[in-house]
Amino acid sequence: MPATDFFDRKNPVVYEGTESRDPLAFRFYDKDRKVMGKRMEDHLRFSVAYWHSFTWPGGDPFGGETFNRPWMHGGDALELAKQKAEVAFEMFRLLDVPFFAFHDVDVAPEGASLQESNDNLKVITDIFAEKMESAKVRLLWGTANLFSNRRYMAGAATNPDPDVFTYAVGQVKAAIDATHRLGGANYVCWGGREGYETLLNTDLKREIDQLGRFMSMLVDYKHKIGFSGPILIEPKPKEPTKHQYDYDVATVYAFLQKYDLTKDVKLNIEQNHAILAGHSFEHEVKLAFANDIFGSLDINRGDDLLGWDTDQFAMDVKEMALVFHEMLKAGGFTTGGLNFDAKIRRQSIDPDDLLIAHVASMDACARGLLAAEAMLADKALTGPLEARYAGWDKAENKAMLGGEMTLEQIADKALSLSPQPRSGRQEMLEGVVNRYV
Amino acid sequence: MPATDFFDRKNPVVYEGTESRDPLAFRFYDKDRKVMGKRMEDHLRFSVAYWHSFTWPGGDPFGGETFNRPWMHGGDALELAKQKAEVAFEMFRLLDVPFFAFHDVDVAPEGASLQESNDNLKVITDIFAEKMESAKVRLLWGTANLFSNRRYMAGAATNPDPDVFTYAVGQVKAAIDATHRLGGANYVCWGGREGYETLLNTDLKREIDQLGRFMSMLVDYKHKIGFSGPILIEPKPKEPTKHQYDYDVATVYAFLQKYDLTKDVKLNIEQNHAILAGHSFEHEVKLAFANDIFGSLDINRGDDLLGWDTDQFAMDVKEMALVFHEMLKAGGFTTGGLNFDAKIRRQSIDPDDLLIAHVASMDACARGLLAAEAMLADKALTGPLEARYAGWDKAENKAMLGGEMTLEQIADKALSLSPQPRSGRQEMLEGVVNRYV
Amino acid sequence: MPATDFFDRKNPVVYEGTESRDPLAFRFYDKDRKVMGKRMEDHLRFSVAYWHSFTWPGGDPFGGETFNRPWMHGGDALELAKQKAEVAFEMFRLLDVPFFAFHDVDVAPEGASLQESNDNLKVITDIFAEKMESAKVRLLWGTANLFSNRRYMAGAATNPDPDVFTYAVGQVKAAIDATHRLGGANYVCWGGREGYETLLNTDLKREIDQLGRFMSMLVDYKHKIGFSGPILIEPKPKEPTKHQYDYDVATVYAFLQKYDLTKDVKLNIEQNHAILAGHSFEHEVKLAFANDIFGSLDINRGDDLLGWDTDQFAMDVKEMALVFHEMLKAGGFTTGGLNFDAKIRRQSIDPDDLLIAHVASMDACARGLLAAEAMLADKALTGPLEARYAGWDKAENKAMLGGEMTLEQIADKALSLSPQPRSGRQEMLEGVVNRYV
Amino acid sequence: MPATDFFDRKNPVVYEGTESRDPLAFRFYDKDRKVMGKRMEDHLRFSVAYWHSFTWPGGDPFGGETFNRPWMHGGDALELAKQKAEVAFEMFRLLDVPFFAFHDVDVAPEGASLQESNDNLKVITDIFAEKMESAKVRLLWGTANLFSNRRYMAGAATNPDPDVFTYAVGQVKAAIDATHRLGGANYVCWGGREGYETLLNTDLKREIDQLGRFMSMLVDYKHKIGFSGPILIEPKPKEPTKHQYDYDVATVYAFLQKYDLTKDVKLNIEQNHAILAGHSFEHEVKLAFANDIFGSLDINRGDDLLGWDTDQFAMDVKEMALVFHEMLKAGGFTTGGLNFDAKIRRQSIDPDDLLIAHVASMDACARGLLAAEAMLADKALTGPLEARYAGWDKAENKAMLGGEMTLEQIADKALSLSPQPRSGRQEMLEGVVNRYV
Ligand SMILES: [Co+2]
Ligand SMILES: [Co+2]
Ligand SMILES: [Co+2]
Ligand SMILES: [Co+2]
Ligand SMILES: [Co+2]
Ligand SMILES: [Co+2]
Ligand SMILES: [Co+2]
Ligand SMILES: [Co+2]
Repeated sequence: MPATDFFDRKNPVVYEGTESRDPLAFRFYDKDRKVMGKRMEDHLRFSVAYWHSFTWPGGDPFGGETFNRPWMHGGDALELAKQKAEVAFEMFRLLDVPFFAFHDVDVAPEGASLQESNDNLKVITDIFAEKMESAKVRLLWGTANLFSNRRYMAGAATNPDPDVFTYAVGQVKAAIDATHRLGGANYVCWGGREGYETLLNTDLKREIDQLGRFMSMLVDYKHKIGFSGPILIEPKPKEPTKHQYDYDVATVYAFLQKYDLTKDVKLNIEQNHAILAGHSFEHEVKLAFANDIFGSLDINRGDDLLGWDTDQFAMDVKEMALVFHEMLKAGGFTTGGLNFDAKIRRQSIDPDDLLIAHVASMDACARGLLAAEAMLADKALTGPLEARYAGWDKAENKAMLGGEMTLEQIADKALSLSPQPRSGRQEMLEGVVNRYV
Repeated sequence: MPATDFFDRKNPVVYEGTESRDPLAFRFYDKDRKVMGKRMEDHLRFSVAYWHSFTWPGGDPFGGETFNRPWMHGGDALELAKQKAEVAFEMFRLLDVPFFAFHDVDVAPEGASLQESNDNLKVITDIFAEKMESAKVRLLWGTANLFSNRRYMAGAATNPDPDVFTYAVGQVKAAIDATHRLGGANYVCWGGREGYETLLNTDLKREIDQLGRFMSMLVDYKHKIGFSGPILIEPKPKEPTKHQYDYDVATVYAFLQKYDLTKDVKLNIEQNHAILAGHSFEHEVKLAFANDIFGSLDINRGDDLLGWDTDQFAMDVKEMALVFHEMLKAGGFTTGGLNFDAKIRRQSIDPDDLLIAHVASMDACARGLLAAEAMLADKALTGPLEARYAGWDKAENKAMLGGEMTLEQIADKALSLSPQPRSGRQEMLEGVVNRYV
Repeated sequence: MPATDFFDRKNPVVYEGTESRDPLAFRFYDKDRKVMGKRMEDHLRFSVAYWHSFTWPGGDPFGGETFNRPWMHGGDALELAKQKAEVAFEMFRLLDVPFFAFHDVDVAPEGASLQESNDNLKVITDIFAEKMESAKVRLLWGTANLFSNRRYMAGAATNPDPDVFTYAVGQVKAAIDATHRLGGANYVCWGGREGYETLLNTDLKREIDQLGRFMSMLVDYKHKIGFSGPILIEPKPKEPTKHQYDYDVATVYAFLQKYDLTKDVKLNIEQNHAILAGHSFEHEVKLAFANDIFGSLDINRGDDLLGWDTDQFAMDVKEMALVFHEMLKAGGFTTGGLNFDAKIRRQSIDPDDLLIAHVASMDACARGLLAAEAMLADKALTGPLEARYAGWDKAENKAMLGGEMTLEQIADKALSLSPQPRSGRQEMLEGVVNRYV
Repeated sequence: MPATDFFDRKNPVVYEGTESRDPLAFRFYDKDRKVMGKRMEDHLRFSVAYWHSFTWPGGDPFGGETFNRPWMHGGDALELAKQKAEVAFEMFRLLDVPFFAFHDVDVAPEGASLQESNDNLKVITDIFAEKMESAKVRLLWGTANLFSNRRYMAGAATNPDPDVFTYAVGQVKAAIDATHRLGGANYVCWGGREGYETLLNTDLKREIDQLGRFMSMLVDYKHKIGFSGPILIEPKPKEPTKHQYDYDVATVYAFLQKYDLTKDVKLNIEQNHAILAGHSFEHEVKLAFANDIFGSLDINRGDDLLGWDTDQFAMDVKEMALVFHEMLKAGGFTTGGLNFDAKIRRQSIDPDDLLIAHVASMDACARGLLAAEAMLADKALTGPLEARYAGWDKAENKAMLGGEMTLEQIADKALSLSPQPRSGRQEMLEGVVNRYV
């Protein structure tokens, strides 16, 4: 069949308003609607992820393929990759999204050698480039898959074998070259195998130093080729290896400081990875902004009752509203976007499940954005927050924080104080949020 | 009754060898035995924690006091504190431990004002100083409790109210003064309330900056008074507040770098806090050494199936063996020690339960130390580890890490490689460890 | 001060509609509004819990009292209990709730002997009875606290000491007598200390048999005194002891079957306990209905990122909507209700925090109920569900389930089949739910 | 290569005593040594699992095959299955184990139809039968894989589609027939897909009823064909689906009671599944014995810090010692055994990693057994346990449990009591255990 027949639908999904009951219509995502002076589309910067939607066959640790996509069976690998590209760009068009993202091996088959893999990637890059001339979609980011092949089973940059390190460098160069060629807004690193299963066979210090060197070289190369976007690291605490070196935002921040990378490397933060690390998504986003290392978001949702990365489509409006509330306060995205690092459940085997999942989640995000805008307009949360810290605006208190007083001077002052606690008003604020979502 | 009658026993616990069946004898802890050239006692540097053993009444969230200690009821608070001190020093003597550790409010009652609290602390400090003239026990560290009093319910250094910050400074000054006076080897900060329950009422960035300032002042003061030991921060991911700012070793390392504190501030690492953060104890210890911020250990054990800090006595020889294996490789303690941040179960209401718990755990630690010594002597783990990374010793590979090659040069080299994975040998190494424990 | 001055407010909270911004007005809870033919109040059957709101002082494992309620300090214990009752009934009036619930020790102080405790309870029961003559509020349930006193540290019914078992029986008799006298609709058992911390000192089989006997006697007694409501067991997986014998709905169901109690004993299900056991609230509710052991609900919310019982006020409309969807399908409450087993955060120290928290959560529940009603009216979820299982309506398939075919006959039939999977449509259904909440 | 060349080794692993350093020698497992009057081999009844050792290629959710076993590539599926059988029986011989276990699809390839699958299974069954004539190894159990094929993605017995139910019946019949033919001691059911991902598309009650019917038919069939061993259900709380219907021992016990299956169906308990459910292995084993539904063990170890089934080789002697302590008290295995449901890490790619892992774990089990024997001989744990419950031996206390006293009579007796708590002695007992392991 022609790939464009994969989906029944021929026309892009459009905004129909809140009364629509069509699962293939937007109820809240109205791309041209202005939110705080900017188009919704420009705020949300949605991106479709190639891997989950087009490369994953629906397997899990207890069962194989369920999706049976035509481009996954039979025929020449490169030809199948081209078919896949047709379907992918068709879906970008139908969803009317401004961005997509990919790993090298999502889009082009690995060859028998690095050279062959690089050649395959170039073939596909050419096809993408041509398609993008007429399509709306842009590249949010590219990345290299340094974790699936068995050569990386003990790490890529952090491998005990320097040849694997070397090979990984070769693969990353090709991936960032492809990303650059396609005008990617960012380049992402996810350290799938950078971590360890047991310290019995691992020299943690040595391995993290290797990773530091690897990232530094990548930053140098990015400058050399004039790639203007940031390098992004995506933290994840566990899976595949037990102890990942990029555990969470704070861990990556420590790493970036140690190897002097805070200027060029930022973070790509994922909801599911946040909760696997014991944090909320909002915590991770806020911490990144606080330390000036925010980059982009992998939007999805984990299952709070499960200990692994379920990468479900984000559907919780309240969570989105609070994240966008932080985002809007901090100025929103620059190069980043909302990348759907989300997969339909393996039982969702119909082609339109793919579309419906994206549409439903885009709508949940849009609704969250609108709620955030309204909360900001009303100062519903920011007002009480400012009031709570107002004491620090007094000159004498500013002086303490400004380093103008010694510990002894402050301790002296303390002798005359008997501070009384004030209510934190958590339930009241939770009720306020419920007014907006 | 005289406090010295609290325990039935009059003589210190002694080493009797592995055949002993007396729960109040050491089977492995033989303090003068040499381990890699140093006395066991000097390796292990055991410390008794005042709070769990003498101040905690046995309550939990669903029930009150179970221990009914005589010094917790009736009479004048300061008099009871003196009684408590008698029992504490009696226990230090019976266990023959070289160290103890305390919070200000463990040892002396809070007064109606900061001045009165400070005065109470001075009274007790004098008593301790006098006792320590004739006792063996030294002070491993002191600390201030900035979390129990309701004034700290929204944080101490990170409180929205500058008066609370001020008060905390006052309390910390008194606590470090007392620690210094008693010759403490370290001063510890545990950020009990430095964290948040909900971002709805919290300005995370501002609060962490407050904490940075607080720590900087403390470091300045430490230098001023000539306190030579390090300031230690004890990471903990949750409890009491939901998101603690000192989540784990990596988080604290990021904080120390940001506020330029890595030289003066080190880490006090606790097993139970490690696992609450999703790490192993060994991981946290190794990460601290790797980043040159290791300080001391709070030795205990959490329950892997529970989500809160159970602070049980460490009894797992294998875990200890692997931690000491890392410790010995890294040179062991300098100012730090093994502080029993461990409490007997609330059903363990007999006085000798207190002694037995310490003895059993000291023995498990000693046995772990001996196993670590033997593994090192045999190069049982270090040998295979070195072999695994041996490829990096080659000049051309060192050059990659040394920054002498660009990404492009390495990528070129990759084109001729096809690296093959080598077995990680995890089960074999696990079997090796079982030979020693 | 007169207890009625504790709250600033004098008039009950009323429904003002969705546009209201008053945290002390209902936006969705409109008690007389008909939902599927029944008044909202009669559907929701809200109940205030005495313990969290009036007895808990705001302490946590790391800090003491924060609330400083007037009835917790100074004076005679019984007099303070009377003051507390004044405030409690005032709050019932202000919230206009139809029910409340209590433990014996919440309402009356423990005496120096069981007799004295019983006498205290009778004094308070008399006061409650008198107040209830003129108040709207009814008793949803009473219960005995068999976990706080140190005598119960190793269990009540499951204690190794038969005298503790005996004492617990005495206490429970007084509590069910009081509940009966006040017209309680149910009697609840929560097995706080029925469980174990370590199998090293525990005979699990023997202890569960003790619990079986205990419950059987209670059922006999209930019939004898003519108490018509069910006995309810409240499952909880952990806290206070590590392994609770009433882990979850399935565990209690196994217990009830073993001791032949399914007819008289039903379940009181709590959201926070559900998630601590690794389930969703909805799962536990549905499982109870499926096995005909549903009784009542403790409505609250746990923190998905924490491992202990936070008992926060339920604020998640979507979760409520799905639970009420199940409830409405199964016919709703009979004797049960929505009991707020929820506590304000310990930083919420103002009296009106108590009111606001209940109001905000009542509103979230009401909104969930309305969403459930709408989904049912539209058959939004029930329609697709019926369609999914429609194959089982065929006679030949019914025959398989009806026991009319042997395994061999069915196996024969299988030889001619090649069943094809159908999409589970999860994302589509999630999108549907988002239309209603 | 001939399959017997897969392992370098030609001679079975033998017992060499504790001084051996050979990872391919037993240090504790001395099969003929008598333990409480029975040979070690007869106590431990070790079984090798076909799936992990011979069928799993080393993939995980983030990467594919690492092992590259010769029988997994190229050639006819049935021929490869025969090669695999050669290697498997060679490993049984080398490990000198008395048992093995398998799923239908582990040993024989699925065909294009059920008939073809059945035929394949018969071919392999014949080969096994022939091999078993001369080999020592017996079949511990067989089972059907009702979870990997996409037809089962929404459940097997619990599928919304009756045709899938039917197909599953057909597959199970073939699997139990094969098991019976090979003299299997048990037949196992693991409900991989019996559970649900979302209640939005699931009728839990209906599905559990389907499962009840399925199991009843299987029991009828077992009797009909004269299969004398029990049917075993293996509980697991999560993975693959979110909510498995066989959550834990208690859940399965509730199920067995409801459908009147307790006589014919017992439990196969796995360590990793126990901890995923929030329990200890020991808890699950003890609960099964307490309810007379103990069957067999899947011996492995989960990672306490990870939320999924890691199925590592059991290496913890203390855990084994405590489990065997319970086992020995309860009389040990009848039809069951210690089946290694354990897989080597995906980095353990050398053939001898397979052998070493089994040997190391067999040794850990043997050492645990010896420790349990010693503890029992000394009454180290049983003595204190009996003493703790001794009060219940008094006639008047027995009368309470025997149902000879009413609640009122016991409550009367309570009025004269003031029971005092006794120490639980947990730390002392933990120290005792450390003397034996
Ligand atoms: Co991601
Ligand atoms: Co993810
Ligand atoms: Co600690
Ligand atoms: Co702790
Ligand atoms: Co409750
Ligand atoms: Co609760
Ligand atoms: Co298993
Ligand atoms: Co498993």
